[in-house]
Order: sequence, then structure tokens, then C-alpha cells
Amino acid sequence: MTSSELRIGVLGSGAGTNCEVILLACERGEIPARVVVVISDVDNAGILQRARQRNVPVKIVGPSRFKTKLEPELEQQIVEALRAADVGLVVLAGYMRVLKAPLLDAYAGRIINVHPSLLPAFPGLRAWEQAWKYGVRVTGCTVHFVDAGIDAGPVILQQPVPVMAGDTAETLHQRIQLTEHKLLPEAIRLFAAGKLELRGRQVKIL
Amino acid sequence: MTSSELRIGVLGSGAGTNCEVILLACERGEIPARVVVVISDVDNAGILQRARQRNVPVKIVGPSRFKTKLEPELEQQIVEALRAADVGLVVLAGYMRVLKAPLLDAYAGRIINVHPSLLPAFPGLRAWEQAWKYGVRVTGCTVHFVDAGIDAGPVILQQPVPVMAGDTAETLHQRIQLTEHKLLPEAIRLFAAGKLELRGRQVKIL
Repeated sequence: MTSSELRIGVLGSGAGTNCEVILLACERGEIPARVVVVISDVDNAGILQRARQRNVPVKIVGPSRFKTKLEPELEQQIVEALRAADVGLVVLAGYMRVLKAPLLDAYAGRIINVHPSLLPAFPGLRAWEQAWKYGVRVTGCTVHFVDAGIDAGPVILQQPVPVMAGDTAETLHQRIQLTEHKLLPEAIRLFAAGKLELRGRQVKIL
Repeated sequence: MTSSELRIGVLGSGAGTNCEVILLACERGEIPARVVVVISDVDNAGILQRARQRNVPVKIVGPSRFKTKLEPELEQQIVEALRAADVGLVVLAGYMRVLKAPLLDAYAGRIINVHPSLLPAFPGLRAWEQAWKYGVRVTGCTVHFVDAGIDAGPVILQQPVPVMAGDTAETLHQRIQLTEHKLLPEAIRLFAAGKLELRGRQVKIL
């Protein structure tokens, strides 16, 4: 680890495939970064298993009495865990709760999310299924900075994914996930290299 | 003209570049169709000039006391003009009014529109500018069947268009228009060949 290495905290609620991709990209030196903590709201989430297997410290923050957000005091616990680990970038990798002031204020401009559609189309849950039901010919994936809106922050990278004849929502989802696994490390690499500049709600790649 | 030739009515309010593309594609035999009437709500619209230059009958229906729709009796005049010309497909090519019951009912499933974004993102006016201001990396164009919603009907074809570094809203618009000029004739060709099947809100290409 070098002093310039970006320290990443990952938040996730699910299987953690995107987290695994980040862990591998860091290990291989493809991005000058290291995942220093993985935080989940789900105590048996696959993402925690993947982190433990690679000796990354984990923390469970929850359960919550809310379904789509955390109590401010719980969110503050996340902030403290991120700060204790000296995290410079927070990556949401399938984290199923909306962030609120404690985390958004503490890590303004340093939280990114990956979403399985070409935002602003199909924000929210099961975006691939929304797209498939709508009948689009093209959907995709988006990596964006996180703000108080739902999947509404400034776009860093997007890549289109065609809907094929014969696709089900699930085959489409699989194809989108492959794109996520390319786009998320690329966005982290750009962030780590200081190449992302926020101008209003537009992200300039330097 | 053969008996199987599709008879097209074009509605437009502006310069009529998409109408010109359709006229050319028909002339060249690229689509087995003929534009038999061009209708505008704007009496000096460029689209009327283009039609007259190619000896296509034109009709002006307006002015209207509304900005975004027509009075039912005016819309009924459009229906009558389309029927008098034995139109089988209505193409909206930059027509700036929302269609209502008279036309939607008379031509259900036989009205298509081209829109300069990947719907459902950026419906409404100046979609290229909306996309540019949002800061997306990918936008595009959509050809869709028209229903009572605003740019909300079943999608026939879509094509992504990347936003380039250095793009202005206008350079982006120009790039999208090139895609419109490919996608709209292709959609008409599929319709003329009977290859579009509407299933719920999904369009199957046979």
C-alpha cells in the first residue's frame, strides 16, 4: 500500500458481486485502491462472506425499523466506521437504503453508486425488470455520484446494453451486470486518479 | 405504385427534415410506401415547402386557440384528410401537439413518432437539451407508437447516441438527428412489411 492509495468503504445489502469485482481489481493493481471496510445492513448478506474470505474488515449496521433508510443514529455509526477506517471513497454496491444527511454530509462528493439502467430512466428497484416491461430496445448501466435523490445524482459513466429478442428480465439483468462489472472499477479508477470534476450536476472527465 | 404500397400521412410543425428523409426513402424504393399527404399546424412551416417541392398534397389545420393540442373539431379535420387520402400509417415528424381521441381512435396502432431521446428518459420538448443539462453520457432516439401519453407509447426502435466531451446541446442534437434519419425509415419499413406486432406495450419484431 502506498500513501496515494485510495481507501474504499463498500456498502451493500446483497450477494456482493460488484464488491467482489472491486476487491479483485484492487488486488490485481488495476485500480490504485484498497477496500478497507465492507458494511452491510443485512447480517447474512453474501457481500459479508466475500469480504471475510479476503480478510477485509466487515461491519453490520442494523437492523432498522425502516425498510428504505436508516435511523440517523445508525447512519452515524456508518460514518464513524468509515472515518475510523480513513475511507476516502464510499461505494454503494447493491445497498438497498436511501442515504440521508449524516452520510451525505460527511462524504459529500465522495459516494458513488452503480445502477442497472441508463438513468434518469428507471430509477428505483429492479430497474432491469422495469426496462424490460416498458419494452425498451436499449437500457444499460450508470455509475453516479450519490445525492439525496433516488438514483438522481450526477452521472459519472454510462454504458448502453441492448435488449435482445428472446430476452427475459433475468437474461437482460445478467447482461447488464457484466457491464456494471466493467463500469464500476473504471469509475473508481477515474476517481482515484483525480480525474472526475463536478461542475453543477455535470461530471467532467479530466 | 403497387396495391401493397403503404400510404403515409405525415404531420409536422417544423423544418421537416425527417419528412424529407421519408420522401427520399420512398422515392428510392427503400421503403415500399408513398407519402400521400403532409399536414401542418403551422402555415409557413418548412415541412410544407418540402412537400410542395415534391408535389405531395399539403393541408394546414390550424391555427388553434391551444398551444399543445388541437380543438377536437380541428383534429377531426385531420382525420378526414387522412381518410380522404386513404392513409394507412400516420407519421409524426416534429409535430408539436399532443394527439387526442379523434385521431388516436381513428388510427389506433397506426401512428408513429420519432423522439430525440431514449424514452422514457427525457419526454417532452427539447429532449436533447434536457439530456445535455442532466449530464448523461448516453442519450439517443426512439421511434414509438403514439398513445394518449406524452412520448409514452410502445417502443418500436431505439438507438443510443453518446454524449461527447465538448458537446453542446446543439452538437448533440445534430448527432441525434442523424440517427433519427436512419431509425424512422427503418421503422416505417418494418411497419409496411407487417413485421411489427404489438403485445401489451411491447413491440415484437417478427
